[in-house]
Amino acid sequence: MSGNIPPIDVMCRQAALDRQARLTKPAGALGRLEDLSVSLAAMTGRLDWLPTRRAVVVCAGDHGVVAQGVSAYPQEVTAEMVHNFLAGGAAINVLSRQMGARVTVVDAGVAGDIPPHPDLVSGKVAPGTADFSIGPAMTSAQAAQSVELGRTVARREIERGLDILAVGEMGIGNTTAASAIIAAVTGKPVGEVTGRGTGVSDELLAHKITVIERALKVNDPIGEKTLQKVGGFEIGAMAGLMLEAAAARIPVIIDGLICTSAALVAAQMEPEVKGYLVAGHRSVEPGHRAALSWLGLTPLLDLDLRLGEGTGAVLAMPLVEAAMRTLQEMATFDDAGVSGPA
Amino acid sequence: MSGNIPPIDVMCRQAALDRQARLTKPAGALGRLEDLSVSLAAMTGRLDWLPTRRAVVVCAGDHGVVAQGVSAYPQEVTAEMVHNFLAGGAAINVLSRQMGARVTVVDAGVAGDIPPHPDLVSGKVAPGTADFSIGPAMTSAQAAQSVELGRTVARREIERGLDILAVGEMGIGNTTAASAIIAAVTGKPVGEVTGRGTGVSDELLAHKITVIERALKVNDPIGEKTLQKVGGFEIGAMAGLMLEAAAARIPVIIDGLICTSAALVAAQMEPEVKGYLVAGHRSVEPGHRAALSWLGLTPLLDLDLRLGEGTGAVLAMPLVEAAMRTLQEMATFDDAGVSGPA
Repeated sequence: MSGNIPPIDVMCRQAALDRQARLTKPAGALGRLEDLSVSLAAMTGRLDWLPTRRAVVVCAGDHGVVAQGVSAYPQEVTAEMVHNFLAGGAAINVLSRQMGARVTVVDAGVAGDIPPHPDLVSGKVAPGTADFSIGPAMTSAQAAQSVELGRTVARREIERGLDILAVGEMGIGNTTAASAIIAAVTGKPVGEVTGRGTGVSDELLAHKITVIERALKVNDPIGEKTLQKVGGFEIGAMAGLMLEAAAARIPVIIDGLICTSAALVAAQMEPEVKGYLVAGHRSVEPGHRAALSWLGLTPLLDLDLRLGEGTGAVLAMPLVEAAMRTLQEMATFDDAGVSGPA
Repeated sequence: MSGNIPPIDVMCRQAALDRQARLTKPAGALGRLEDLSVSLAAMTGRLDWLPTRRAVVVCAGDHGVVAQGVSAYPQEVTAEMVHNFLAGGAAINVLSRQMGARVTVVDAGVAGDIPPHPDLVSGKVAPGTADFSIGPAMTSAQAAQSVELGRTVARREIERGLDILAVGEMGIGNTTAASAIIAAVTGKPVGEVTGRGTGVSDELLAHKITVIERALKVNDPIGEKTLQKVGGFEIGAMAGLMLEAAAARIPVIIDGLICTSAALVAAQMEPEVKGYLVAGHRSVEPGHRAALSWLGLTPLLDLDLRLGEGTGAVLAMPLVEAAMRTLQEMATFDDAGVSGPA
């Protein structure tokens, strides 16, 4: 199931660049939308691609490290928010309705029981990870299982019809796991890549940094061991989603800090996945900048979001559509009889 | 017709703030979308407002200052692009179709003849302004006429049914006028607020700066004289559109450098207009930052756009909708049975 991500289509990339140069606008005047259209053409191998069939997959999991008091919210909120997603009341539901994206929720490792629901994939690897400040977050078999869960969900979504995938998450304590992953992969100091998550105090932030530093010391989370040592089940599932979508040439819009830490995990497994990622937004979490930079991605939106759930990814969908529609539908200078530069 | 912009609704503003605090997300986690929802509630006086009926008005005009060789494109391109707008082939047409916004084009002062068209308002004040590097761009009667043209178009759009208005423009040479207005109003040095427009060389940029400095010296464009001395007919029309929409409590999404220079002109006439403006995006033009800062606005998008036409304003429409939908449709902590911070 691994090593099957195709290279991006350089011919189609060049065709998109050539067409952009002939459209009725000064060269480069659509800025990042032009770059985005060229990237999307390279990913999909098509100039006529549109993000019509849209899905967001929200992966949920709990984290043993919350025992260290790293979050402002109690662990029950993970399960409570999963119920909120399934009832349609969360921000990701509202935004997905607006953008015409279907929502699938994955229980990758929530501590509480979640009753069956048509929009829920019950894939619980375990009811929360172990406390990674004192040992590995999970076994290597559990890490592999979480990634395979994401791959399975991606295949199911592709079978339902899929042009673009947004990935999001929910899990009290998971900014702690994400910052640990980002520090481990990028080599940045923990203090530089750790933020307030749902909103911890100065004192708690300092404590959170100490906990992550201890976790990195205890675990030595190098290379493909990162997910197992300091990750989370929802993070593994998100990595699997990205890898399987990329294998099918389906662009993936990534969200904030935690989702992007999953992209690092995916890129450790198959670096080619990076060619199929679109960064939806830049979060206020300081580690997000480091993670995006490591991936070579520039985010489309910068709206001081720090919610997760896939909200920043789904918000970027109209920009993805706009990039392709301008490429496809604008008149060329020749067609429209518009003069070029003097 | 002036002095009739109502104050923003502070009660509704507070009601929006109160509701944001009860929604199922950490406080402030939707970042700029939360601020935007609060501003829109204050503008419209409604929590249940949505940007359903959408229009973009693209105002076109020519500029006598092109005789000084300040643009990379020949003047004919203004009329040619108006034809392109009416034929549906320009970027603003593509984006407006995507976002469900109707497009109206206003000939406020194009140098060439534009035949009648159902989507065109023929309001030509004159076939281009005078060269403002050697004297005033227009008479004071023409300045008033251009503003009244915009007001008339706004009233017509309101009669057609309007919830949100995006404003855009086309006019070869109009970044020169916009930078002159921005320097005059903000007091910033011309070199700081002048950019490459459609893409002039280093040499031409230096020349453009010299031309604007001369224009400011020749014209002394203080206060309400700014539009007349160094403005443009499309800039006056855009100012009128903003003033009349604000008087009807209709939020106005402004676009890039030239549109924002029109907002400065409008705010010189009625400062209350500032309360009804949403900044769609930040352009790469250096003067745009100074103009937005003077207005107290932070842009929603930052995509290196420099096209005008209203493209950056229309691209922001889904964010305006998202801000209101999350405010209106998200569950509260009580409704959803989700726990608050521990």
